[in-house]
Amino acid sequence: MSKAQTAIVMLNLGGPATLADVQPFLLELFADREIIQLPLQRWLGPYIARRRTPKVRALYDSIGGGSPILRHTDAQGRGMIERLDRLSPETGPHQYYVAFRYTRPNSDDALRAMAADGVRRAVAFTQYPQFSCSTTGSSLNELWRAAARTRLTETFEWSIIDRWPVHDGFVAAMTEAMKEGLERFAPADRDRVLLLFSAHSLPLDVIDRGDAYPQEVGATVQRVVECLGAPNRYMLAYQSDVGPVRWLGPSTERVIRAVGARGEKRVLVVPIAFTSDHIETLSELDREYGHVAASVGITEYVRAPALNDSPRFLDALADIAREHLASGTRYGTQYPMHCAGCRNSQCRKIVNPVGALAPRPTRRS
Amino acid sequence: MSKAQTAIVMLNLGGPATLADVQPFLLELFADREIIQLPLQRWLGPYIARRRTPKVRALYDSIGGGSPILRHTDAQGRGMIERLDRLSPETGPHQYYVAFRYTRPNSDDALRAMAADGVRRAVAFTQYPQFSCSTTGSSLNELWRAAARTRLTETFEWSIIDRWPVHDGFVAAMTEAMKEGLERFAPADRDRVLLLFSAHSLPLDVIDRGDAYPQEVGATVQRVVECLGAPNRYMLAYQSDVGPVRWLGPSTERVIRAVGARGEKRVLVVPIAFTSDHIETLSELDREYGHVAASVGITEYVRAPALNDSPRFLDALADIAREHLASGTRYGTQYPMHCAGCRNSQCRKIVNPVGALAPRPTRRS
Repeated sequence: MSKAQTAIVMLNLGGPATLADVQPFLLELFADREIIQLPLQRWLGPYIARRRTPKVRALYDSIGGGSPILRHTDAQGRGMIERLDRLSPETGPHQYYVAFRYTRPNSDDALRAMAADGVRRAVAFTQYPQFSCSTTGSSLNELWRAAARTRLTETFEWSIIDRWPVHDGFVAAMTEAMKEGLERFAPADRDRVLLLFSAHSLPLDVIDRGDAYPQEVGATVQRVVECLGAPNRYMLAYQSDVGPVRWLGPSTERVIRAVGARGEKRVLVVPIAFTSDHIETLSELDREYGHVAASVGITEYVRAPALNDSPRFLDALADIAREHLASGTRYGTQYPMHCAGCRNSQCRKIVNPVGALAPRPTRRS
Repeated sequence: MSKAQTAIVMLNLGGPATLADVQPFLLELFADREIIQLPLQRWLGPYIARRRTPKVRALYDSIGGGSPILRHTDAQGRGMIERLDRLSPETGPHQYYVAFRYTRPNSDDALRAMAADGVRRAVAFTQYPQFSCSTTGSSLNELWRAAARTRLTETFEWSIIDRWPVHDGFVAAMTEAMKEGLERFAPADRDRVLLLFSAHSLPLDVIDRGDAYPQEVGATVQRVVECLGAPNRYMLAYQSDVGPVRWLGPSTERVIRAVGARGEKRVLVVPIAFTSDHIETLSELDREYGHVAASVGITEYVRAPALNDSPRFLDALADIAREHLASGTRYGTQYPMHCAGCRNSQCRKIVNPVGALAPRPTRRS
């Protein structure tokens, strides 16, 4: 293979690849003040992480002994790069690098590999369709800190893809996944299936600071429903709230209980804010809420497949990267903005988005 | 004028036309359990309404002695009907009727006028772009109760337009209003103006029941921003929360304070969930938050004009009605659905959506 001209750095949460990785993963997660803010975090974070380890380890054990997210991300990266080399030969060859937030390969790993490969041009490409400071924001800040740690702040010419909530290719891939889900119902029942979109929730204090996430999730839902063009009713709910603080609702679990109690028989749950299978789809949506659904009389409970390495999603990833590279912009218009109530001094910075690229963003993100 | 074939019933909140109407308006508002749920509502509602009357009366006094909403609604109705008679002669002549929720003309007035005019076919057309049980839901339920009260449940052949958050014409009209707002800034500064979309907030317990409103508001914001095609940064916030319960955030007022404190100088506030000027635009956004903005160093604070009787919005209203009439459907796919946590036995019923129309909804709302 010829030397890569352009690095596509895929930013994502990550997950423990093996059961032995569960505790380190949780320690990293509960140390991240951009996702969880605890009093005395340096002590309380590790305490909570250690206390939760056995339970979370059992969940990963139940889904095959670890998170499949690295496998899916590798498949997505390979598929994207293959397509991108064809679609945008002028910026190729391309290479993908994985930068997970709480597991290896992390930002340090990605940056060191890029330096070893002699890459100069780099795109930080979030794998979260909708922007949140808790996810993409945290990953970008970590990338910046990692560049400082590894003394690679001046090595790459960066640009940023920070959100793509209504990108046509993403919407088409989501719609296809929903159609696959609907096909698991008998044709005569299909139009009566309730579509339940489920996104990871956020604590309300994050919402009250002005995080863009619920607005963008709402936009994705509307676009996907339009693209599907089916007569199904739909709802949006938020999953995975934990701990004593109040989170954005309605809660996916409570919605399932309530619609079941009202006589709903057929539900298609659609994970709308994460593109690979992970513990929240394979364990929480499939098993935990699957049991809840059965217990309240929902006779057919189906979860739409995650996008994973579906060809249409690989097309979408390549297309998002190609459009970004062709635009010549460093980042979208929303990127430089802080949440109204931002309290994070590191927010919206990245190593060196300077150089030969356009001096100001002009493209709507 | 020849006898009306089709009635378009414009559902909206309404507002006190004169200062003498303020107390009756508040009494009606605080009696509506679909918008506010109070303990001992029959006693506490009137108590709160009477206590708030002097303050609210002073606000209406400051904006000219009353709400302009009837004037705007009449202009919208006239403009819509004129266009509709041209666009859809096969369902004409059309006539509009105003059914306000807490002031005259109310649902009883509209129904009686329709009966007197000999109308048979009627469309209940919400004037709220995004659906909420607190607004459109409450108005539709009141229409149904009013039909029972006036013994007109069998008189009309109903169909329903219950939401239009991303209708192209509405989006185009909103975009035009935003452009008008942006033109009040110097050309050199225009691209740096922060767009602050503001929608009326809802108590979090309404959100937690699964109200569709925040998802649809998010979708409107995305579409309008896309249609504008400008490089401005934007945020969505929620205004007008009152009382001790927690409401959906971020709060418009707090966002204005926060962005001002961070050095934002130019803000265009865009009311995104209500189409006519009312106390929340003329008093709260313009005066109250205008003072807040000035106090935190925002030197140019502009509010985008309400749609009111802008020709493009009249086109949109006529187009929404025309598309609905041409579709032959009784209601959109979301209409029959209850919120997951619905506790209102009257929800999602209307007088007699039966008869010659299609037996099942097939059009995506």
